Amino acid sequence: MAATRRPGRNHLFVPGPTNIPDRVQRAMLVPSEDHRSVDFPALTKPLFEDTKKVYGSTDGTIFLFPASGTGIWESALTNTLCRGDKVLTSRYGQFSHLWIDMAQRIGLDVVVQEEAWGTGADPQKIEEALRADTNHEIKAVMVVHNETATGVTSDIGAVRKAIDAAGHPALLFVDGVSSIGSLPFRMDEWKVDCAIAGSQKGLMLPAGLGVICVSPKALQASEGKAGRNDRLAHVYFAWEDHRKQNPAGYFPYTPSLPLLYGLREALACLFEEGLENVYHRHHVLGEATRQAVAAWGLKTCAKDPKWNSDTVTAIVVPEGVDAAQIIKHAFVRYNLALGAGLSQVAGKVFRIGHVGDLNELSLLGAIAGAEMAMNDCGLKVTPGSGVAAASNYLREHPLNKN
Amino acid sequence: MAATRRPGRNHLFVPGPTNIPDRVQRAMLVPSEDHRSVDFPALTKPLFEDTKKVYGSTDGTIFLFPASGTGIWESALTNTLCRGDKVLTSRYGQFSHLWIDMAQRIGLDVVVQEEAWGTGADPQKIEEALRADTNHEIKAVMVVHNETATGVTSDIGAVRKAIDAAGHPALLFVDGVSSIGSLPFRMDEWKVDCAIAGSQKGLMLPAGLGVICVSPKALQASEGKAGRNDRLAHVYFAWEDHRKQNPAGYFPYTPSLPLLYGLREALACLFEEGLENVYHRHHVLGEATRQAVAAWGLKTCAKDPKWNSDTVTAIVVPEGVDAAQIIKHAFVRYNLALGAGLSQVAGKVFRIGHVGDLNELSLLGAIAGAEMAMNDCGLKVTPGSGVAAASNYLREHPLNKN
Amino acid sequence: MAATRRPGRNHLFVPGPTNIPDRVQRAMLVPSEDHRSVDFPALTKPLFEDTKKVYGSTDGTIFLFPASGTGIWESALTNTLCRGDKVLTSRYGQFSHLWIDMAQRIGLDVVVQEEAWGTGADPQKIEEALRADTNHEIKAVMVVHNETATGVTSDIGAVRKAIDAAGHPALLFVDGVSSIGSLPFRMDEWKVDCAIAGSQKGLMLPAGLGVICVSPKALQASEGKAGRNDRLAHVYFAWEDHRKQNPAGYFPYTPSLPLLYGLREALACLFEEGLENVYHRHHVLGEATRQAVAAWGLKTCAKDPKWNSDTVTAIVVPEGVDAAQIIKHAFVRYNLALGAGLSQVAGKVFRIGHVGDLNELSLLGAIAGAEMAMNDCGLKVTPGSGVAAASNYLREHPLNKN
Amino acid sequence: MAATRRPGRNHLFVPGPTNIPDRVQRAMLVPSEDHRSVDFPALTKPLFEDTKKVYGSTDGTIFLFPASGTGIWESALTNTLCRGDKVLTSRYGQFSHLWIDMAQRIGLDVVVQEEAWGTGADPQKIEEALRADTNHEIKAVMVVHNETATGVTSDIGAVRKAIDAAGHPALLFVDGVSSIGSLPFRMDEWKVDCAIAGSQKGLMLPAGLGVICVSPKALQASEGKAGRNDRLAHVYFAWEDHRKQNPAGYFPYTPSLPLLYGLREALACLFEEGLENVYHRHHVLGEATRQAVAAWGLKTCAKDPKWNSDTVTAIVVPEGVDAAQIIKHAFVRYNLALGAGLSQVAGKVFRIGHVGDLNELSLLGAIAGAEMAMNDCGLKVTPGSGVAAASNYLREHPLNKN
Repeated sequence: MAATRRPGRNHLFVPGPTNIPDRVQRAMLVPSEDHRSVDFPALTKPLFEDTKKVYGSTDGTIFLFPASGTGIWESALTNTLCRGDKVLTSRYGQFSHLWIDMAQRIGLDVVVQEEAWGTGADPQKIEEALRADTNHEIKAVMVVHNETATGVTSDIGAVRKAIDAAGHPALLFVDGVSSIGSLPFRMDEWKVDCAIAGSQKGLMLPAGLGVICVSPKALQASEGKAGRNDRLAHVYFAWEDHRKQNPAGYFPYTPSLPLLYGLREALACLFEEGLENVYHRHHVLGEATRQAVAAWGLKTCAKDPKWNSDTVTAIVVPEGVDAAQIIKHAFVRYNLALGAGLSQVAGKVFRIGHVGDLNELSLLGAIAGAEMAMNDCGLKVTPGSGVAAASNYLREHPLNKN
Repeated sequence: MAATRRPGRNHLFVPGPTNIPDRVQRAMLVPSEDHRSVDFPALTKPLFEDTKKVYGSTDGTIFLFPASGTGIWESALTNTLCRGDKVLTSRYGQFSHLWIDMAQRIGLDVVVQEEAWGTGADPQKIEEALRADTNHEIKAVMVVHNETATGVTSDIGAVRKAIDAAGHPALLFVDGVSSIGSLPFRMDEWKVDCAIAGSQKGLMLPAGLGVICVSPKALQASEGKAGRNDRLAHVYFAWEDHRKQNPAGYFPYTPSLPLLYGLREALACLFEEGLENVYHRHHVLGEATRQAVAAWGLKTCAKDPKWNSDTVTAIVVPEGVDAAQIIKHAFVRYNLALGAGLSQVAGKVFRIGHVGDLNELSLLGAIAGAEMAMNDCGLKVTPGSGVAAASNYLREHPLNKN
Repeated sequence: MAATRRPGRNHLFVPGPTNIPDRVQRAMLVPSEDHRSVDFPALTKPLFEDTKKVYGSTDGTIFLFPASGTGIWESALTNTLCRGDKVLTSRYGQFSHLWIDMAQRIGLDVVVQEEAWGTGADPQKIEEALRADTNHEIKAVMVVHNETATGVTSDIGAVRKAIDAAGHPALLFVDGVSSIGSLPFRMDEWKVDCAIAGSQKGLMLPAGLGVICVSPKALQASEGKAGRNDRLAHVYFAWEDHRKQNPAGYFPYTPSLPLLYGLREALACLFEEGLENVYHRHHVLGEATRQAVAAWGLKTCAKDPKWNSDTVTAIVVPEGVDAAQIIKHAFVRYNLALGAGLSQVAGKVFRIGHVGDLNELSLLGAIAGAEMAMNDCGLKVTPGSGVAAASNYLREHPLNKN
Repeated sequence: MAATRRPGRNHLFVPGPTNIPDRVQRAMLVPSEDHRSVDFPALTKPLFEDTKKVYGSTDGTIFLFPASGTGIWESALTNTLCRGDKVLTSRYGQFSHLWIDMAQRIGLDVVVQEEAWGTGADPQKIEEALRADTNHEIKAVMVVHNETATGVTSDIGAVRKAIDAAGHPALLFVDGVSSIGSLPFRMDEWKVDCAIAGSQKGLMLPAGLGVICVSPKALQASEGKAGRNDRLAHVYFAWEDHRKQNPAGYFPYTPSLPLLYGLREALACLFEEGLENVYHRHHVLGEATRQAVAAWGLKTCAKDPKWNSDTVTAIVVPEGVDAAQIIKHAFVRYNLALGAGLSQVAGKVFRIGHVGDLNELSLLGAIAGAEMAMNDCGLKVTPGSGVAAASNYLREHPLNKN
């Protein structure tokens, strides 16, 4: 809390947690109730089915955990793999790095393809590695769909094609924490085996509900692990306990009721807007942001337009400017929360999240704020230039496709 | 409700109701309780004292009614005046007009000084009228402090000087609905006798709580009216019933609990920011808005800078442009609620409210939205020009004085 | 607030304000919005129609005021009557008394039939008075349907028959503040001309929304009053201003948005349960309460079963016992809010409200609490006796008719 | 959701999740915010210190996880132990059983002392087992403080004495999910090494925040495990990641903001009431419940008064009666949620939770409801008898010690 009250609302433009729509806030305002009551399944059973739609899946199985996305990374790995199993992945930002770190710490043999920060997974290199793995030692390919740290989206469809081209049976695990519910996601089409989401991004909820969608192939891989001596044994994140309870609408331990009620309402929001409209809106707001960056004469962290993320833009500041100072100033002076640069890009970038429940004028307010904070901190950009460029684009491109 | 969901928040820039701060929303979320309990006065008694601070009064008495500001107009008139009493007032906008209409309909003899819309009360003319009233037939002078329809603030201190210069005993009634809590208000210094506020403007609450601060002189005027045959007899808005109950912390009929709890929190917000900071902030945001209007090459309804309101700006559109269309387009396309022109200025102005719990980036979002809506509707302004002008001003002028 | 925290919930058994259902609380948690927007009528227009159902009316017109029920009393009288008009009414409790007091203070000539507290309106006496009024000087008959102070319900159908039997054209005004939405109310069948409700009783909302349903005959009576010199001139509560705006879904002044959203949800609650079920439930809970009183060996204020109110029971304590002390003790020690005796019956009765959103176990908790408080305060009743009697009755009588 | 609306509130008497106080509900109603902002530590840093008070600890370290209590079981085991490590524990109910199951599934060697359901941990047998373990192969003793399934509280102080008497260095892990915040807990005095709590019991929050307090000895045990090949490798529940971030007020992954704000308010509630008063209140309500059970002529699952739990009472129904039917009937007919019998005692007991934010009349309502449900289902008890016994006790024993 600040020493004195800051008037007005906080302008939240970190790439998650995202703004919670009013109606979702209302939906979460629930008294406690017996999660074993005869009424309870009427709430929960539709959630499992409806959540799959956001993944673009009909074949998958949804598990809901009281956890953040980090826990769901762990759930994917530990339910399907054994100690010492080999996995293939790429590192191109802080979140791909952290998932690698987890995989290593829980005892997997992680083959890392290092990619430049500002790029993403390289399907060709993945295909080559898989082709070379003639013994099929690689049990899974792990890809971060949207690298939140750099504002880069990898092409999961291309990764799938690479795996298929190599004729390799590895599972495909995708971190969709900052993409699912915001960017097009085609679980079944891309034959993703584990797709990981958190509640606090495109699902427009507080953090605390971890979501995974699991393919039949991954479910099968998880079965029988219980009996093995080298299993990555877990209970909290184990699917088997959930599979015993979920079909009847219950959970193996006490779920967080507000988040379940909130999820129901958030899904209703997404479906009322229409998922294709949601994806389109994220694209329009992302492009508007990039138009502003170009008007400022700055560059994004994404090294090529093909890597552009429609949920977050990382903006590179010139040498000699401290992006961290801009971020702090924006927060303290203008009540604007921008995302910081992490690790390799700390101090070198600031990020504008444009994910979740947003519209044009909220974004333009943030762009105006970024302009002001940059100018205040010695990074001179033409006042109004970013807003002008973004608003010109937005006038031409309605948020709704229809 | 719209047919399809509009993503993101509504940008509310009508001059009331205003945005409710989150903490005030929380404070209003209360279960019902017995408003006759022994605990209840601990909530209510401080409200009467603290609300006076917002009026700049120590001598006054606060009455709180479940009502909108319109009801409080009626409370001022009916408690102090009798049928056929003469009152003096000026008309320069829709709200001064409506108060005059009420005064006439309840049976007062209203002397109206017509002023051009875009100007306000003329102290010199008021002084002249009072000097001419040698028999002191005029019982009260009614002034709308801030004419919400045109974005004009009258000078109450000058009106007081005019009354004093005329040596006239008339009561001074001030409509402060869109000023109190936002613009400097000096009840005691200006010797205001009845000052009227609503909850949905500077007090940052939903509508429904009408507030009046009454001077000792007005209280005295109200006494004894009960016995008179020509009284403007009321019960609901009668002060006498409240005076019997309020000192002990109770009300003559059931109060709206959420609004009382909300008022407590809203006052805490104002005091934490500091009333002088609140006034300063409104001035800065108002001036930033005017800078944007000037950059667009447009004019405000206020005919001279001395009339500028710091809570609402009415922007005149050129001949041939329909302001109503801009307003509707802004709402439907950009989720931006602008204020409409009313009565004489319908279709000729749109209004940007900058009152209540606001900060720079919210305002800049609205300015950007107004730019877009104007351009979409054929009123060409340079994209980004208003935002640039406003943001340049805002960078130089922090919201907080300290 | 108490000096130290009282654990657990407050048990609210005053006869209003009543408990707000969770879903109604949620529904009221709304941001401010422009009450002049193109979206707004989608909220408001159905409210006018749906509210009529609670009155048992299709012919009537609903007006919604930011006000408590007291204001709506005033709205009924001032829109239809002129100064000096004669009205006929009965006094049998504090609320009928207060309405009489209002009628007198606003300048009506009130003919009062005094009835014993614990009884209600006497149709025969009303018929006689109307028959005697051969010149039809009596313009209206005012009846409090449910006298909250004594727990007595008058028979409005019988009053209607009395008026008709006398062949008298007087308007029929009914205070339904503590009956409408809880007890059967047949506006059209009983040919009620003005029926007054508040939000904080059967409508399960906070106080602050005053509701009136007006018959075509009363609407006609109100027309033309504006031109008369002896009108009970009002503006805030005038129907004419609302009639200009309501059909399009708007209001003449800023409405309280949370209460409108809350009303929509509260009506949905009533309709989902079914109005007949709601009435039945109130009867069952009322009878259960009376069974408890009988088991305690005490008497209700209602002097005959035909006067029993199904929304509130006033319990007479024996000579020498101070009911006020029981009430205070129940509140401080057991967090139980009972209703106090008012005026004539102050100290002689305590009241258990059983109105609004209640079920069996909440009521039994209150009955248990009343037992404990009585015993603590020296009024010895057999512990558990009231609960046993009430629960035996409740086991036999489900709350839902179906 | 039920097909038709059930009027009134749900009476929640499962032993968790518990009722959320209104002020805690309010506190959780927060917008999203940047959990990396400069303001954030002002919220979080005091939480770590204040939560320790509820554990009776000054030496411990608090970790907060987005998880249910089950996850915190896992956190205790996996941070301190290695694969194949031997642990000693007792089984006497469903929750002690589930923790044993977890320990086995993650690869520990679990020595189980079977105790009759209705009793608890036997300090003497624990001492004997530890004395026999001369090689100190037992690395930890696991005890469920309050077995929620049977309503039994074990004596942790006695377990500590047993460990000390045996001169054994084993760590002491205590599941305090249904005790901490409700029953006296003396972390430091009892030298507990890991104490596990969930948010949805005595902390009066929704589920979703897992809390552990860790002694310096357990922290030390956890260090260096990272390097070992046989570690129970985890990342999500690893303390080391939190230890890097918590001292500055941050978390290694996105925390659930509503639960953190709710925790702050829930702690304030506990401290305002006073922890000793909280414990006393739970004892009084527990004893009142037991008085009711005795009055009904029934027995609790707890086989001796020394095992009585003050947070939940499991009531044994006679042969031939199906407790599950009573529970279902109570829920459907009376909106009363009772706890079911689990596993061994399924159908044989129903449970009344009396944990969290409760007071006398809420409990008496539930007791009345249990009476009615039993009688409806053919288990005849004297109507009102339980309420009479409980209320007599409650009249003599105020909830507040002072």
